[in-house]
Amino acid sequence: MAKEITNRAENYSQWYQDIVKKADLADNSAVRGCMVIKPNGYAIWENMRDQLDRMFKETGHVNAYFPLFIPKSFLSKEAKHVEGFAKECAVVTHHRLMNDPNGEGVIVDPESKLQEELIVRPTSETIIWDAYRSWIQSYRDLPLLINQWANVVRWEMRVRMFLRTAEFLWQEGHTAHATRQEAMEETLRILDIYAKFAEEYMAVPVIKGIKTENERFAGADETFCIEALMQDGKALQAGTSHFLGQNFAKAFDVKFVNDKNEEEFVWATSWGVSTRLVGGLIMAHSDDSGLVLPPKLAPVQVAIVPIPKPSPEIGEVAEKIMKALRDKGISVKYDKDDQKRPGFKFAEHEMRGVPVRIGIGKRDLENGQVEVARRDTKEKSFTPLDGVADYVANLLDDIQQNLFNRAKKFREENTTAVDSFDDFKAIVEAPKEGMPESWGGGFLSAHWDGTTETELRIKELTKATIRCIPLDGEEEPGQCILTGRPSKRRVLFAKAY
Amino acid sequence: MAKEITNRAENYSQWYQDIVKKADLADNSAVRGCMVIKPNGYAIWENMRDQLDRMFKETGHVNAYFPLFIPKSFLSKEAKHVEGFAKECAVVTHHRLMNDPNGEGVIVDPESKLQEELIVRPTSETIIWDAYRSWIQSYRDLPLLINQWANVVRWEMRVRMFLRTAEFLWQEGHTAHATRQEAMEETLRILDIYAKFAEEYMAVPVIKGIKTENERFAGADETFCIEALMQDGKALQAGTSHFLGQNFAKAFDVKFVNDKNEEEFVWATSWGVSTRLVGGLIMAHSDDSGLVLPPKLAPVQVAIVPIPKPSPEIGEVAEKIMKALRDKGISVKYDKDDQKRPGFKFAEHEMRGVPVRIGIGKRDLENGQVEVARRDTKEKSFTPLDGVADYVANLLDDIQQNLFNRAKKFREENTTAVDSFDDFKAIVEAPKEGMPESWGGGFLSAHWDGTTETELRIKELTKATIRCIPLDGEEEPGQCILTGRPSKRRVLFAKAY
Repeated sequence: MAKEITNRAENYSQWYQDIVKKADLADNSAVRGCMVIKPNGYAIWENMRDQLDRMFKETGHVNAYFPLFIPKSFLSKEAKHVEGFAKECAVVTHHRLMNDPNGEGVIVDPESKLQEELIVRPTSETIIWDAYRSWIQSYRDLPLLINQWANVVRWEMRVRMFLRTAEFLWQEGHTAHATRQEAMEETLRILDIYAKFAEEYMAVPVIKGIKTENERFAGADETFCIEALMQDGKALQAGTSHFLGQNFAKAFDVKFVNDKNEEEFVWATSWGVSTRLVGGLIMAHSDDSGLVLPPKLAPVQVAIVPIPKPSPEIGEVAEKIMKALRDKGISVKYDKDDQKRPGFKFAEHEMRGVPVRIGIGKRDLENGQVEVARRDTKEKSFTPLDGVADYVANLLDDIQQNLFNRAKKFREENTTAVDSFDDFKAIVEAPKEGMPESWGGGFLSAHWDGTTETELRIKELTKATIRCIPLDGEEEPGQCILTGRPSKRRVLFAKAY
Repeated sequence: MAKEITNRAENYSQWYQDIVKKADLADNSAVRGCMVIKPNGYAIWENMRDQLDRMFKETGHVNAYFPLFIPKSFLSKEAKHVEGFAKECAVVTHHRLMNDPNGEGVIVDPESKLQEELIVRPTSETIIWDAYRSWIQSYRDLPLLINQWANVVRWEMRVRMFLRTAEFLWQEGHTAHATRQEAMEETLRILDIYAKFAEEYMAVPVIKGIKTENERFAGADETFCIEALMQDGKALQAGTSHFLGQNFAKAFDVKFVNDKNEEEFVWATSWGVSTRLVGGLIMAHSDDSGLVLPPKLAPVQVAIVPIPKPSPEIGEVAEKIMKALRDKGISVKYDKDDQKRPGFKFAEHEMRGVPVRIGIGKRDLENGQVEVARRDTKEKSFTPLDGVADYVANLLDDIQQNLFNRAKKFREENTTAVDSFDDFKAIVEAPKEGMPESWGGGFLSAHWDGTTETELRIKELTKATIRCIPLDGEEEPGQCILTGRPSKRRVLFAKAY
C-alpha cells in the first residue's frame, strides 16, 4: 500500500495528493472547484472545530448563523472590500427551474430572474454588519462576540485539496466593540488563540505577525496572521485576525450611544481559520509512508492489531486494553478484520496516520506483553500488559511533543537571515539537498523598504512574498535587500501556498 | 417585558413570532426568505445537533461533507426526484462580478456565464450518489453509513421563523447497503433515533408512521416520519427517514459485486431533521410568559438572581452553588447585572425559557436557604442551601418529565377517532374552547380508502392532510369517511405546518 505513495523528495505535490487519496481524506467532486471531504478527513476537521469552538467559548464568544446569500449591492458598500471580494464568486440570478419544453430535462425558468442578484458569501462582514445595525444601540449592547461555522465560496478552478477549493468550511468571528482599544485587544486575543491551537493541537509552530498593506484583508485597517512552514520550504498562512476599525460600521451605519451619551460608530474585528488547516496539518508532519497526525487531533489515536488474526483470547485482552484506554479519554479501534493480514493492516494504519499501533500475538500473551509502535518515528517496543494504558497515554504525549519539536527544528534550520538580494534569490531558487524540485527556500528574514512597489517587485522576481512583519521581531536598522533604502526591521519572506 | 407577548388564545401565530423575537432567538435578514439565527436560538440548535450527532455515531455513522452545488443535469437523473426538487431553488449562472462601467457599484460579468448552471442543494441525494459510484465496488465496501451537517436552500418567500425559510440547517444521512432488508432496517433504526430524540430530549411525544404515496419524498419507495402535535392543534412533521430502494443507485449507476460474485445495484436510505425542530420545540412547550425549554436542551439550565442586587456575600454563595451545579454537568449563569431590578430579571429569564431560577436575598442567607422557581409550572419553593445542587438536579429531571407528560396529555385530549365526514369537518373547522381562531383540530384518526384522489379531496375540503399511517396502528376494518369505500385501518389526519 505504502509503495503507492510518491516520495516527498521526488514530487512533493504528487506526494500530497497521494496522501489525501490513499488516507481517504478527500475526493474530487462532479462540481469543478469543489471537493468532497470524506469521513477520515472530516473527522480531523471535527476535532479541530471542537477544540477551537471550546477556546472561543471560554473567551466569551457565542455562535450564530447568518444567511448564505449576500445581496450584490452589499459588496459595494465598503470601498476596499468590494475590490477584494467582488471578483470570482458564485452568482445566483434565478430561483426556479422548469421542465424543458423540448423534453430535455430541466431548464432555468427565465421568468424567475431575481431583481437583485445574490452572491454566495465569500465572507460575511457585509451581511453581518447589516444585521448588527439593528442589534446595537447602546454601549450596553457591546461587546458583541459572535462566531459562525459555515461554508463559503470563492470561485476557483485550480483546486488543491483542502488548500484551495471553491467552496470551503471555516469559522468566521465578527465582533463589535465600544472602543478602538477593545477591538484591538480582541484582534490580538484571537491571534493568540490561533497560535496556541496551531502549536498545542496541530503541533505546528507558527510565527505571529502583521500583514503588509498589500496583503491586508480587503476592508481591514490591520491584518494579523499566523504563518507556518511546510516541509517543502513554503509558507502556509494558517489563520488571520483583522482589526477592521470603524470601516464596516461606517459602511452599514452602525452607531451606538456611548456611556457619555454621545453617538459613535462601532469598532470591529473579524477572524477566521478554515479547512485549509487540514491541508497544513497533512503537509507539516506526514512522511513517505503516509499521513502522520498529532495525537490531539487524530480521530483514531490507537489501533490494536491481532497477530496473525483475531482469536477469542486476543479479543479478550484487546477489550481490556480498549476499556483502559477509553477510561483515559483515548480513542481506540480494534482491527478485527479476518481477511487482511497484519502487514497489510500495519501499512493501512500507517497510511492513515494512527499515532500508536498495538500488536497482540499469541506469544506476546504468553509473555504478558504487547508490541507498541509509534507512527512518528516508527520505533517499536514491547511493554508489559500491566500498565499498558499508562504507557500509551505517555507515548501519545511524547509523540505530540516530538512532532512539534521536529517541526520547530525544521523551521529553525530553514529560516535564513539574508542581507543581499543575490543571497535571497539563490536561496529561493535552488532546491536544497534532499528536497524536491519545488523547494520553496524556507523563511527568509530580510530588510525591506516598506513600499508596496518593492514588495511587488520582489514577488515578480522571486515569487516570494512578505508573509508578515513578525510581532516579536526587534528593531534593527538595515537596508532594503532590493532598493538599499533604509529599513527599521526585518520582515519575513517566503514562497507561499 | 412579558406583557409584550400576545396571548396564545388571541393570536397563536403572533404569539410565536413574539417569542422568537423577545427571547432573541432569530431575526429577519436583508435577504428575503432567509433568517438570521441569533446566539440564543443557535445554542438550542447546537444542543440538538450534539445529541443527535452522538446518537448517530453510537450507531456506527460517520460525518462527511459534500459540495453545496449540484449540476443542474443531476436533478433530472432520478425521474421522481426531479419533479419534487427541480422547482423553487437558487440557480447559480455566473461566477464573476465586475465594476459597473457606469460607476454604479458592481455588475455580473456576462463573460462569466457557466456552461451548466449549478443549483444550490435543496437536498444532496444526487451529488452524493454520484460520488458513491466510485466509492463502492464490493460488498466489502458496504454498508456506507454517512451523515452530513449542512445548509440547504429551497426557495421560499413566505417565511415563518425556523419552520419555513429558504435556507435552513439540517443533517442529512445517506446510507448504502448490500440488501433491501439492511436498508429497510437502517430506515427504521433512524426513525427510532428520531423518535427517541424527540421524546427524551425535546420532551415532545411523536407518532411514528408511514407517509402516503402522495406525501412521500420524491425518489423514495417509502417515507417514514415522526409527527408531533403543537399547542394550536396542528401537526408538525419533525423528521423523515426514507427507504430509497435502488432508485438512486440506478439513476447514478452505483453497482457492487455481492458475496456470490454477482453485480447488483446498491440499496439506499436517506433521512433528515432540520432547524425546523427549534420551531417545534418553541411551539410545543412555551406559554404566554415566553419560551419554555426542556432542561436537556436548554443552553442555560439555571439562572441565579441576587436580590435585590449583587453583593459580595451573595456572590460568594452563588459561586459555591455554581460550582456544585457545574460538577453535576448543569449549566448555570449568575445574573450579576447591577442595573436591572430582580423583577425585570425574573421576567427576562422566564421569557428566555431558563428552566430553573434561584433567587438569593440577604434574608435567605440568614435562614440558610434559597428560593427556587421552576419555569414550567412557575411554582416557587424554598430549599436549604445545603444540598441545593441535588435539589436542582432532581427538579430539572422533574421538569423534563413534566413537559413530556403535559404534551402527551395534550395530544391525547386532542386526538379524536372520527367515523363520519361531518364529524371530521366539525372538528377541524370549529376552534376549541379557549383555543385560538386558527385552532387546527388536533389529530383525527379516521378511515380512508387508500387513494390519492380521496386524500387530495379531503385536503381541498378541510385543509387537513394525512400525516401518516401509524406504525403501531392496528388492523381495523372500516369505511372511508369521504367515499364510504372499505378501509383496513385508520390513518392520522391533521392540519399541518
